[in-house]
Amino acid sequence: MPPVVVLVRPQLGQNIGKAARAMLNFGLTELRLVAPRDGWPNPDAGPAASGADLVLEKAQIFDTVADAIADCGLVFASTVRRRDLIMPVVGPEEMAREIWATAGRAAILFGPERSGLESEDVALANRIVTVPINPEFGSLNLAQAVILLAYEWSRGADLAQPTAKEIEPPAPMADLEGLIGQFDESLENAGYYYPPERTPATRATIRTILTKPQWSSREINALRGMLRALTTIRSSKNS
Amino acid sequence: MPPVVVLVRPQLGQNIGKAARAMLNFGLTELRLVAPRDGWPNPDAGPAASGADLVLEKAQIFDTVADAIADCGLVFASTVRRRDLIMPVVGPEEMAREIWATAGRAAILFGPERSGLESEDVALANRIVTVPINPEFGSLNLAQAVILLAYEWSRGADLAQPTAKEIEPPAPMADLEGLIGQFDESLENAGYYYPPERTPATRATIRTILTKPQWSSREINALRGMLRALTTIRSSKNS
Repeated sequence: MPPVVVLVRPQLGQNIGKAARAMLNFGLTELRLVAPRDGWPNPDAGPAASGADLVLEKAQIFDTVADAIADCGLVFASTVRRRDLIMPVVGPEEMAREIWATAGRAAILFGPERSGLESEDVALANRIVTVPINPEFGSLNLAQAVILLAYEWSRGADLAQPTAKEIEPPAPMADLEGLIGQFDESLENAGYYYPPERTPATRATIRTILTKPQWSSREINALRGMLRALTTIRSSKNS
Repeated sequence: MPPVVVLVRPQLGQNIGKAARAMLNFGLTELRLVAPRDGWPNPDAGPAASGADLVLEKAQIFDTVADAIADCGLVFASTVRRRDLIMPVVGPEEMAREIWATAGRAAILFGPERSGLESEDVALANRIVTVPINPEFGSLNLAQAVILLAYEWSRGADLAQPTAKEIEPPAPMADLEGLIGQFDESLENAGYYYPPERTPATRATIRTILTKPQWSSREINALRGMLRALTTIRSSKNS
């Protein structure tokens, strides 16, 4: 089940909209707001959501973090490591794994834009989740933190990470041999193989070069056509 | 080596700043701008970078995408799948793996905010990289696309990578352009481009075929020598 995203005391409506947009990109639709500073609904949220209105319309409002996560069994607090709390700290990947593995509802807490989560908020969670960032420049805004964790969650779905399998398969070796043979013959005719004692090494190089690309049959046919064009003209002009 | 981030014809200075901020969070510092709409430097970039000024100060400006990636051997175009191009499509994870494995420089191209990359831009890359998003709501802005790919790259830093350092790195794109240009000229001389209205499509096919292999500079030089042999003979016999 997709995790709930809980924004704790968010300040700007715009950032709530951006968070909604970030969520929906990766299939998260359940947004909960704890005591949004400017009340709710907020007219700045809609335009910033760029079409993720569904998420905003369904958003639920709570007075406290405890209320917002009352039905959740696995809660992550998105924050940097806290010296004041002894609590497991996980990375985004481990968080995603745990959310996919749990049979209950999961939630991720995000703090206010400027200050982040208070220790009392974090203490309500089971784990801290920290995105490993540049130690010399850590500057994630709210929507960016949401999008990175939502993305990491969605990866676990094994959602068509596009692979190269939909593109054309490499040609059967017989097709490749046809190309290599034609190339070889053309070069032979052109007097390329010289001196003779170098020829085997040169042929091996050519084979390596032409085998590396894993061209499709269509590509090999196109190349053979070009090679024919280059050499046919020569022959006709020769004659 | 961290990949270069190339923003192609970015529109708003603010978004350039946000992209810089997104990059630095995950340790990317090399930003290249191709024909930024409002020129460079842009006063809106700095405030949006939230302290990532280092990245903006070092940013380099180029007139064309080809110039911006001339020293790169492995180039990803961040875009959705393209029906008009037959090109390998990978997810962020696979992209990161390939960047960590390559011995050469890698680059990631991002298009303008509204329209995204043009087909001619994408055709210069080795691969398309697509973030798998909600099929019913795909709405990533520029900085979000940058941060997700930067994040995915940084994750790879942990893994002890078996590297490809013993094999030859792919040639810089400038070398590849040399080969494509020579091929093109030879085919033109051979009268291969016919009928004229098909020529752009044929040229695009040739580019794809020759970009796919990721040949090394040595291999490209060998191929250029062979091509020269095939065509020189023709010219001499012609005369």
